[in-house]
Amino acid sequence: MIGGQTGASDLGYSVPIDGFTTHTTATAPGSLVFVSGLTSRSADGSVQAVGDVAGQTRQIMSTLRGVITDAGGTLADVRQIRTYVIDIDAAWPEIEPVWREFWPDRLPASTLVQVGRLFDARQLIETDAIAFVTSTMENI
Amino acid sequence: MIGGQTGASDLGYSVPIDGFTTHTTATAPGSLVFVSGLTSRSADGSVQAVGDVAGQTRQIMSTLRGVITDAGGTLADVRQIRTYVIDIDAAWPEIEPVWREFWPDRLPASTLVQVGRLFDARQLIETDAIAFVTSTMENI
Amino acid sequence: MIGGQTGASDLGYSVPIDGFTTHTTATAPGSLVFVSGLTSRSADGSVQAVGDVAGQTRQIMSTLRGVITDAGGTLADVRQIRTYVIDIDAAWPEIEPVWREFWPDRLPASTLVQVGRLFDARQLIETDAIAFVTSTMENI
Repeated sequence: MIGGQTGASDLGYSVPIDGFTTHTTATAPGSLVFVSGLTSRSADGSVQAVGDVAGQTRQIMSTLRGVITDAGGTLADVRQIRTYVIDIDAAWPEIEPVWREFWPDRLPASTLVQVGRLFDARQLIETDAIAFVTSTMENI
Repeated sequence: MIGGQTGASDLGYSVPIDGFTTHTTATAPGSLVFVSGLTSRSADGSVQAVGDVAGQTRQIMSTLRGVITDAGGTLADVRQIRTYVIDIDAAWPEIEPVWREFWPDRLPASTLVQVGRLFDARQLIETDAIAFVTSTMENI
Repeated sequence: MIGGQTGASDLGYSVPIDGFTTHTTATAPGSLVFVSGLTSRSADGSVQAVGDVAGQTRQIMSTLRGVITDAGGTLADVRQIRTYVIDIDAAWPEIEPVWREFWPDRLPASTLVQVGRLFDARQLIETDAIAFVTSTMENI
């Protein structure tokens, strides 16, 4: 299976959150795309959507989609994400609907942790990601 | 060297913790396996081993082993792990014996940080991992 | 493009910090190098550069360079780093000059978060990294 994803429901393991992926596999040939430091900062350095986790999440997802598209793939090619938030209880109900909008079929393998601070104190969420884009497009 | 691991003792660098691996290398052909969000939650969504870091660690390792085995590898194929705990001082003496039980020869390249919260407040530890499984089995 | 890096300035996305890389791509053939747990601990287990974030960062970068060099690459092959610090406001002005010294052309895709504790309470910074070293040297 090239670039396959196996859902939690296919496994006997304890991963109860519906629609989440426990693990993903990337098999060559293809390209790994590493994306880091995704936040809601705009081109002039200011933090967008201050106080709005959903808005910050939406901007992050839009940027991530642009990066992966430039690399020849889609958001479905994202293999693993790590998300850092300031307040999990407040953030998760805001984050989940945005993620499901961008990943309607299945969320990637995901870790979510609450940290003390991000680079700018107004940042409420930061994400990094690894995607695997199969090399079909490059071979054309 | 395909899928090689180099131990700390082979290097001149400052990695004093015995049995830990500073770095690992994955050389094609093979498959990368990304595993995230490993916690002690059970299939019905409840958190197992409440208040028991060793028990939560054991469940995480058991799930990780199952995922990697399904992908055609073993726990020795795990290349890098990140572990997030709520209280490092309390957790580490509980975690280490469990890790050494599952990884008797050598621990993978590992980062351990203390964070403010995990998804469920009763979770004391969460792990994500990247494994590299050589493609021998797929070629059969 | 093998092992290509695209800078923030080439993209229409919101990544304002000059010299940072939004994303990097690793295309086979080559080797992935996973490096974790980089801190300022010395071979006897003691924490070096106590109270000195710049000194700890320098030791981390020196170790990372050594590991990547051993794997046949250079620091320019580092694709993604995650950095965990205890105090972002205090640490970043100390970290940035050291990083720019080791990565004069461009910093890798990078996430920086503030956490509550690292393994040893005197550690002010810890880094993990993924590098992609093209296989030219191995083919010789």
